[in-house]
Amino acid sequence: MRIIIDAMGSDSYPVPDVAGAVLAAREWGEPITLVGDRAKIDAELAKHTTSGLKIDVVHAGEVIEMTDKATDAAKHKPESSMHVGMQMVARGEGDAFVSAGNTGALLAIATLHTLKRIRGVHRPALTAIFHNSVGYTVAADIGANVECKPDFLAQFGLMSSLYAELALKIDRPRVALLSNGEEEEKGTELVKESGVLMSAMKTINFIGNVEPKEVLGGDTDVVISDGYTGNIMIKSFEAAAATMSGLLRREIKAQPLTLVGGALSQPAFSRVRKLMDPFEIGGAVLLGVDGVVIIGHGRSNEIAIKNAILRAREAVQGRLIQAIRDGINN
Amino acid sequence: MRIIIDAMGSDSYPVPDVAGAVLAAREWGEPITLVGDRAKIDAELAKHTTSGLKIDVVHAGEVIEMTDKATDAAKHKPESSMHVGMQMVARGEGDAFVSAGNTGALLAIATLHTLKRIRGVHRPALTAIFHNSVGYTVAADIGANVECKPDFLAQFGLMSSLYAELALKIDRPRVALLSNGEEEEKGTELVKESGVLMSAMKTINFIGNVEPKEVLGGDTDVVISDGYTGNIMIKSFEAAAATMSGLLRREIKAQPLTLVGGALSQPAFSRVRKLMDPFEIGGAVLLGVDGVVIIGHGRSNEIAIKNAILRAREAVQGRLIQAIRDGINN
Repeated sequence: MRIIIDAMGSDSYPVPDVAGAVLAAREWGEPITLVGDRAKIDAELAKHTTSGLKIDVVHAGEVIEMTDKATDAAKHKPESSMHVGMQMVARGEGDAFVSAGNTGALLAIATLHTLKRIRGVHRPALTAIFHNSVGYTVAADIGANVECKPDFLAQFGLMSSLYAELALKIDRPRVALLSNGEEEEKGTELVKESGVLMSAMKTINFIGNVEPKEVLGGDTDVVISDGYTGNIMIKSFEAAAATMSGLLRREIKAQPLTLVGGALSQPAFSRVRKLMDPFEIGGAVLLGVDGVVIIGHGRSNEIAIKNAILRAREAVQGRLIQAIRDGINN
Repeated sequence: MRIIIDAMGSDSYPVPDVAGAVLAAREWGEPITLVGDRAKIDAELAKHTTSGLKIDVVHAGEVIEMTDKATDAAKHKPESSMHVGMQMVARGEGDAFVSAGNTGALLAIATLHTLKRIRGVHRPALTAIFHNSVGYTVAADIGANVECKPDFLAQFGLMSSLYAELALKIDRPRVALLSNGEEEEKGTELVKESGVLMSAMKTINFIGNVEPKEVLGGDTDVVISDGYTGNIMIKSFEAAAATMSGLLRREIKAQPLTLVGGALSQPAFSRVRKLMDPFEIGGAVLLGVDGVVIIGHGRSNEIAIKNAILRAREAVQGRLIQAIRDGINN
């Protein structure tokens, strides 16, 4: 297995990107290719002990910045690290591509210029993996498609179910539709029509509608929605957790006694923070393109990059792409 | 001012409903009418000291339960406390109606059977008021209309802005559209077209698109969306806060030292809980019907009912209904 890493992805590229790749090469011993500005990557690699590690570098002369407009960057920077890296996967020179870069550009380059969609897939879906109160939930779509049709959502359900089963090793994953109520008659026309389609699918374990409370309660393994609503849900989860942390910090600091209490209970806060930390997950798979692509957060540190590489390994080992090809065309 | 209270609204009716009404009558000294099963209300009133308070009772022979199907209950229980109470407001025998009952039934009875829509209003909107990190945010629609058109959202913006200004006394309230990105080109077609309409409105202070992070960060006073997305946002906020509280409680209990720390920092937790407690808000206004209607949570306790009555008083004192009539037809 060879994983291709975008060395120019994260906000602080190439520092965490290279460091994460070194950690991964050391832990798993398998070949890793760093794609990007060779001089910068080499300078960064020189700061690490890499003897015995199977790390090589492929030069890419252009960098896509977070501020670049996605479709423009995809079209006008054909020598970007994203373009070069995903082209390698498309040609079979690597098994997966990992990037913490501009999500929109990554989506456009994967879908339109390099890997392309798996035959039969209507639309690719961005996913998120997050902790619920008992394990993990996979959400799709969380932003690739603001407007969706029922058959898009049905495919998101199938692809996410395969991902949860083959990569995350969740047995017979429960797949649900996000809605404003659990009853069948709840939801938009899109939700209702998608529910009819998904109920009829024998390839997924569809359990009906769920509300955000059930999602975080761990009542489903996969939650499906259009990319607009999914994006609002994920960002609302993040915003509420951040706001609550901020309020707690402020109120704990407000009095000497609670400040002492806060210091003593610090290990508990740290464990909760770690549990809710997206960097522990590292990245999420882009479903529907013809190759494994893992997208990390722009603010990724080296641990996040290493964990994103783990997500790529799981998907490759689970033979996810072949399973989606078979599943979609059956 | 006379406020009409649904005595059969909350999950534990008539206990908190009557107790909250007594608290309100004692605090503000103005007339309150309790509507519902007279025998049950009288028995409950007898448990309180009510001498000198201006509380009277109007009998209503039917009760709408939380499990009742909204439209059926609206049609087939014309003697319900909701029906009788809102009819009183429609006839001018009261200035506002407060209920912690079945939201769907309340919406149907208000819109179709009693108060009806204000002339010119396309659709009524359910609202929520919640704490952001610096003050209050009003959200609309949070569930009355799963499918919306741009002119519905534009009216929600106008009505919510008037509510924030006249009832909550927020000066020149900022009105924003919920979206998956702050840029103008982000969002569904509905969001983009609504943005064009709202940008052109001179009667509101439209500030563009906001994400959930900005909503909780207090970057807007009013956030507008279709009822489906708004419902998902509100429920995601609640679910994330509840999940985080649960995780913190579990981790604090996990070790003796953090348990001590947790006990010492308890006052800080309590202040945050109080800040995030929907019962402190009490209830939210139903916008677009021709009378002040405040909807509380089914789990309301007496403090929540009293605070819902305060929300009704603010709306009446701010002459909200007349302002909406004028605003919509200008």
